[in-house]
Amino acid sequence: MQHVDTLIAARWIIPIEPHGSVLDDHAVAVHQGRIVAVLPEKQARERFMPQQLVERRSHVLLPGLVNTHAHAAMSLLRGAAESAHFDHWLQRQVWPLEQRWLDADYVRDGTELAIADMLTSGTTCFADMHLFPEATAQMVAATRMRACIGLPVLDGRTVWADSADEYLDRGLRLHDEYRDDPLVTTMLAPYAPAAVGDATLARVRRAADELELPVTMHLNESRGEVEVGGERALARLERLGLLSPLLLAVHMVHVDEEDMERAAAGGISIAHCPQSNLKLGNGVCPVTALRAHGIALTLGTDGAASNNDLSLLDEMRTAALLASGVRHAPVVAPDDGEPDEVPAMTAHDWLQIATLNGARALGMGDAIGSLLPDKWADLCCIDLARAHTQPVYDVASQIVYAVSREQVSDVWVAGRALVWQGQLTHIDLDDVLRRARRWQQRISGK
Amino acid sequence: MQHVDTLIAARWIIPIEPHGSVLDDHAVAVHQGRIVAVLPEKQARERFMPQQLVERRSHVLLPGLVNTHAHAAMSLLRGAAESAHFDHWLQRQVWPLEQRWLDADYVRDGTELAIADMLTSGTTCFADMHLFPEATAQMVAATRMRACIGLPVLDGRTVWADSADEYLDRGLRLHDEYRDDPLVTTMLAPYAPAAVGDATLARVRRAADELELPVTMHLNESRGEVEVGGERALARLERLGLLSPLLLAVHMVHVDEEDMERAAAGGISIAHCPQSNLKLGNGVCPVTALRAHGIALTLGTDGAASNNDLSLLDEMRTAALLASGVRHAPVVAPDDGEPDEVPAMTAHDWLQIATLNGARALGMGDAIGSLLPDKWADLCCIDLARAHTQPVYDVASQIVYAVSREQVSDVWVAGRALVWQGQLTHIDLDDVLRRARRWQQRISGK
Repeated sequence: MQHVDTLIAARWIIPIEPHGSVLDDHAVAVHQGRIVAVLPEKQARERFMPQQLVERRSHVLLPGLVNTHAHAAMSLLRGAAESAHFDHWLQRQVWPLEQRWLDADYVRDGTELAIADMLTSGTTCFADMHLFPEATAQMVAATRMRACIGLPVLDGRTVWADSADEYLDRGLRLHDEYRDDPLVTTMLAPYAPAAVGDATLARVRRAADELELPVTMHLNESRGEVEVGGERALARLERLGLLSPLLLAVHMVHVDEEDMERAAAGGISIAHCPQSNLKLGNGVCPVTALRAHGIALTLGTDGAASNNDLSLLDEMRTAALLASGVRHAPVVAPDDGEPDEVPAMTAHDWLQIATLNGARALGMGDAIGSLLPDKWADLCCIDLARAHTQPVYDVASQIVYAVSREQVSDVWVAGRALVWQGQLTHIDLDDVLRRARRWQQRISGK
Repeated sequence: MQHVDTLIAARWIIPIEPHGSVLDDHAVAVHQGRIVAVLPEKQARERFMPQQLVERRSHVLLPGLVNTHAHAAMSLLRGAAESAHFDHWLQRQVWPLEQRWLDADYVRDGTELAIADMLTSGTTCFADMHLFPEATAQMVAATRMRACIGLPVLDGRTVWADSADEYLDRGLRLHDEYRDDPLVTTMLAPYAPAAVGDATLARVRRAADELELPVTMHLNESRGEVEVGGERALARLERLGLLSPLLLAVHMVHVDEEDMERAAAGGISIAHCPQSNLKLGNGVCPVTALRAHGIALTLGTDGAASNNDLSLLDEMRTAALLASGVRHAPVVAPDDGEPDEVPAMTAHDWLQIATLNGARALGMGDAIGSLLPDKWADLCCIDLARAHTQPVYDVASQIVYAVSREQVSDVWVAGRALVWQGQLTHIDLDDVLRRARRWQQRISGK
C-alpha cells in the first residue's frame, strides 16, 4: 500500500485528457500537492493508503477552471459603471473612478473579493491585468490561489509608473521576486496597441523571448481598435514579431479573414470574453471561424465592472450558447437521418477550452489544466444532486448548460482545499465583504 | 394596529410598478395571500401587527418571476437530446423518446421536478405546453405553485387524443374544472402553424374569444416554420383573426419587417426564449426591433431538453447580454460627453419583462407581476451577501448580471412560503430526484 495525502472518490471524473472521457466511480490520488494517479475507486482503495479520504457520491470532479482574462481589483466597481457603450463606459465611467481611488489597498481588497468570487465558482487559476501588480501577487500568495500576474506596460503616466522604463523595471523586478513561487507566475501585459508605441512593444518582445514569458494584450475589442494610425493592429504586431505562441490576445471581436490568417500563422491564443463583449455592446468574437483556422481559444471573464461576476462556469455557458446560436447551421429533414453538419463544438470542447487551453496559453500546459499524473492537483468538484441538474444523461452537457456556481462543493489548488463543502477555508469572507462595502461607500459618497 | 398574516422587511424592494423604483429598507404586508401595503419598514411596524415577521437584511424582494414558456415534463429528458440542429433534435431525438415513454405518470414526475427547479430559482408562475395537461395541473395544485396550463390542440393523433375534437373537448373540460381555482388557469395551445389547419385554428379563436382565454403557439422558431403552404405564418394567423392581445407567440426568431408590423397591429405578446433558440442553432429573436414596434416581450425558458435548466434568472441574463451585444450601438469619443444613443434596454426593463409583462401576457396583469396592494403576494427574495454580488451600487443590475439561482432565499405564492431559507417546503426533493433517476434509467436503458 502506497501512502498518499488525499484520495478523492467521485461519482464521475472528467480528466480533460483524453478528450471527451468521462470516468464512472473513479478516484484521484494526491500527494504533496500533485496528482499521483486517476483510477477506478476500487483499485485506488487497494493501492493507496490515504491520510484523508474524500467521498463525493453525487459529484463530478474535473480540473479547476482557468480564467485567462481578469482585472480582479475591478470587483470593487461591480455595478458602478453600467453604460452599455464601450468607450463611454471606459473613458467616462471607469477611468475617472480609478484615477480617483486606485492605490495598493484598493487593489488588495478588490483582488481578495475577486478571488473569493472565483474560487467559489470553481476557478483555480486566473490571469490578471491591473496596475499595482505587486499587490495582486501578494493577495494571490496570501490566499494560496494560483495566478499569472500581468506586468503592465504603457507609454504613459499612471498612478503606478511614469514611463515605459519604469513599468518594465518594476514589472521585471516583480517577475524576479516570484521566479521560484509555485503559485504565482507572471506575464507581460502591454495594455492595448493604441497605448504602446513600437519601441516599447519591441522591448516587450525581447523581454518575453529572453525570459520565455507569455504576453497578453487587449486586441480588437471594439471597432475603434482595429486600426492604429492607419495600420491594422494585427499587421503591426506581426511586423513587430509579437504574433507568436507566447501571445494571448484578449477579445478579438472585430477581425477579418486576414487578421485570422495572421493570428493562425503566428500561433497565438485568443481569450474569448463573451459576457463582457456583449454587455459593452462590442459584439461577438467569431469563435467557430477562429477554430476553423486552427487558433486555440481560452475563456476569460474580464473585470466585474463589465460582467458583473467572475464565474467562468457562467462564461462557458454563454460562450457555448452563442457559438451554437450564431452558427446558423443548416437543419435537415427528418428522413435525411443524421444531420449533414455535426455540431461545431461540443460540451467537452468547452470544458477543454475552460481548463487545458487556458493553462497552455499561460505557459502552464505541463503543470495544470488536466488530470494527468505529476500535474498539480488543481481540482474542482461539482455536486449534481439538485432539481435543475437531475437526471444525468450527459455529465459534460450538465456542467456546460445547467450547473450553477453554488454547486461547486470543493476546490483544491496544489492539493490544498481552498473551498471545502461550499465554504472558503483561507479567506475571511465577512471581512472581505465589509471592506468591499466600505469602498463602495467611499466611492459612491454615501 | 392592523393584524396581518406576514410582514416581510427587506434591505431593498423592487416593486416593478412604478417602473425603475428601488425602495430602501421597506416592508411588504401580506394578509390572506394578498399584498396589503408596501411601505417603509418603520411605518410598517407602527401600522401592522403581523403574525409572522420576516427580516431579510441583505436581501432584495421583488415579484416572483413569470416563465411564459415551458414544457415542464421535459425535465426528465434534460441532457438526453443534445443535437444542436433543431429539426434533428425535435424529430429524431425528442419525439421518439416521448412517443415511447409519455404517459400521465411521466408528466406528473417531470412536472414536479420542473416545479422544484423553477421555485428554487425564483419563478412563481409558469405557462406550460405539454400533452396530459390534467397531470400538469394536478401537480401544480399539489405543490401550490401558480401556472397557466396550455390546453394542447393538434390536427393529429397523439397518445393523449385522436382528433381536434377530442383535444378541444378534453382541454375545455379541464378549463371548466379549474375555473374557480386561485392558482391554476388555462390557455389554448395550438402547437404550431404547421400542426393545425385553418378550421381548427378558427375553432381555437372562437373558444378564446368566448372564454377570454389566452392563446399560445410556437411561431417562427426555425427558418423552416416561417411559411406554411406558401403563406407566411403571421399572415395566416392575421387572416384567421388570431393576431390579438390574447395571443402569446413563442420564439419569433425569424421575422421580417412585415411580420413585425402585423404582430404590432394585432397587439400580441412575444415569449423570448434566448437560451433554447441559441442552443438549437435557431438564432436570436430581434428584441430591440420588436420593442421599437411597440410589441410587449416576455421571457420563457422553453423545456429543459433544450436549455438545460428552468432558471428564469439565468434566461434574463442571457437575454440582457444578447440585446446589448447584437445592438452594435455607435460608440462616442470621450470628449463628446454623453453617448448619443442611450442603451436600448436597462436592467429594470428586463426585470419588468420577467415579471409584469409575463403576467399580462397570461391574462394575470391585475393579479400578479408587481407589488401593488390587492395583488397576490407572489414574491421572490434574493440574498446579495455573496462575494460575487458585493458591493451593491445598482440593485437591478446586480440581479440581472450577477445573481445566481441559489441566492433565492425565499419564495411565496399567494402568501404561502414554498421556498423558505433555501429549502422547498411543499416538495419532497429526495423523492422527486429518486423518481427522476428511475425515469432516466428506464429511458436510457441502464
